[in-house]
Amino acid sequence: MCRQRERRRRRVSNQPAIILVNPQLGQNIGKAARAMLNFGLTEMRIVKPRDGWPNPDAGPSASGADMVLERAQVFETTAEAVADCAHVYATTVRKRAMTKTVLTPWEAAEDMAQASGKCAILFGPERAGLEIVDVELARKIITVPINPEFGSLNLAQAVILVAYEISKMDSVGNVQPTLEKIAAEPAPQRELDMFYEHLERALDKNGYFYPAERAMATKVTLRNMLTKPAWTNEEVKTWRGVISSLERPPRKDKAEK
Amino acid sequence: MCRQRERRRRRVSNQPAIILVNPQLGQNIGKAARAMLNFGLTEMRIVKPRDGWPNPDAGPSASGADMVLERAQVFETTAEAVADCAHVYATTVRKRAMTKTVLTPWEAAEDMAQASGKCAILFGPERAGLEIVDVELARKIITVPINPEFGSLNLAQAVILVAYEISKMDSVGNVQPTLEKIAAEPAPQRELDMFYEHLERALDKNGYFYPAERAMATKVTLRNMLTKPAWTNEEVKTWRGVISSLERPPRKDKAEK
Repeated sequence: MCRQRERRRRRVSNQPAIILVNPQLGQNIGKAARAMLNFGLTEMRIVKPRDGWPNPDAGPSASGADMVLERAQVFETTAEAVADCAHVYATTVRKRAMTKTVLTPWEAAEDMAQASGKCAILFGPERAGLEIVDVELARKIITVPINPEFGSLNLAQAVILVAYEISKMDSVGNVQPTLEKIAAEPAPQRELDMFYEHLERALDKNGYFYPAERAMATKVTLRNMLTKPAWTNEEVKTWRGVISSLERPPRKDKAEK
Repeated sequence: MCRQRERRRRRVSNQPAIILVNPQLGQNIGKAARAMLNFGLTEMRIVKPRDGWPNPDAGPSASGADMVLERAQVFETTAEAVADCAHVYATTVRKRAMTKTVLTPWEAAEDMAQASGKCAILFGPERAGLEIVDVELARKIITVPINPEFGSLNLAQAVILVAYEISKMDSVGNVQPTLEKIAAEPAPQRELDMFYEHLERALDKNGYFYPAERAMATKVTLRNMLTKPAWTNEEVKTWRGVISSLERPPRKDKAEK
């Protein structure tokens, strides 16, 4: 019991923020708060709730988790809500063509347990889920593996499953199988090298590597950065387009192009 | 996908029965059915529901999981409901003075996966939980470890957590997820946003976003790429230097700088 309390204290001090993006019903915000508090999570952020805030319907369905609602912070945009977060996760129900890593809730819980810096988990509005512009902000995706023939998780249920896994991770440490990764295959090193050489040429032309004695170190830094993301072929191609575009002199009239 | 379906078939053939003992509201029976079907469980048994059966309130809150309700079997006593089951588990919220083994949902799921013979899980009525005479029928206890200072799991939530763990156990394989450790602290989202805006301005100036109708999609692609690497402050700064350098016109004589 003592150990349990200690664990809880630790968790609360670095718990992820649960971010409800454009939630519709106050009732569902209340239910989400209740789901959170059952597993010791207290930090809720709300992005542009449809019916404003505070919402009188939230309290009754929180079943006593008022503390979560009272402390909830409200933001105008998702970008503002995650501005201080180092690790943003987006929950999605359906699989989309994603280049981001897709995690199950238990993998995400483990990921968060090992992360340094503030974590945040985005949950979309009841009907439609997160929009593409919100998913973009996230580094990784969380998808609950549900019955492919009947997927009907509501907002509070999605929150409770994620909160449950986070609280488990605290008290367990390790467990768990993994799902097939949906993320696309990263581009081979060769393509990355070609991209890197392209970038280096462009930068050299513009006098970026200066002074000369620091050039080596700068090149190492750049290359280290470029190997981190595990970009796909398509992404490397996109970057090459970016560099090519920047190599050209600015256009006075873009429409002319 | 094929493997997923195969797993589901296997699971359905030997899935545990979810037994609701004296449930009060039809609405909660419907919600429990929805929770079950999300994770592929279809066998519901109901012991003496307070308001009789069928209950017109159950259907609407099942959100399409009518199949579970239609197949539900109704019994007069808990003993009859579990008569054909080899392994009976009772869910309880609070710890009681028990001589029986108490399992978490994930331990119970593992236990059931290894059991031969039919399994059943008892869930008590909304307000009071299972009575002692029902708990007596069970071999083992399942308790969800919740916040000791706020325990407020409703019936459908208890069902969904248990169903979720059972469905996870099916897909085992027991592979540990491999997670990249990021040594340095990733930059907060705010810095990434500023970098992204900088890049976009530079590209826009050079007519990169062309044709106009593809600009949105291209911006999505770029932003997706930039959220992947979890760059540190230093790395984001480096990138900004790169973009600034490329924004300048090429130098004829670098040494002059």
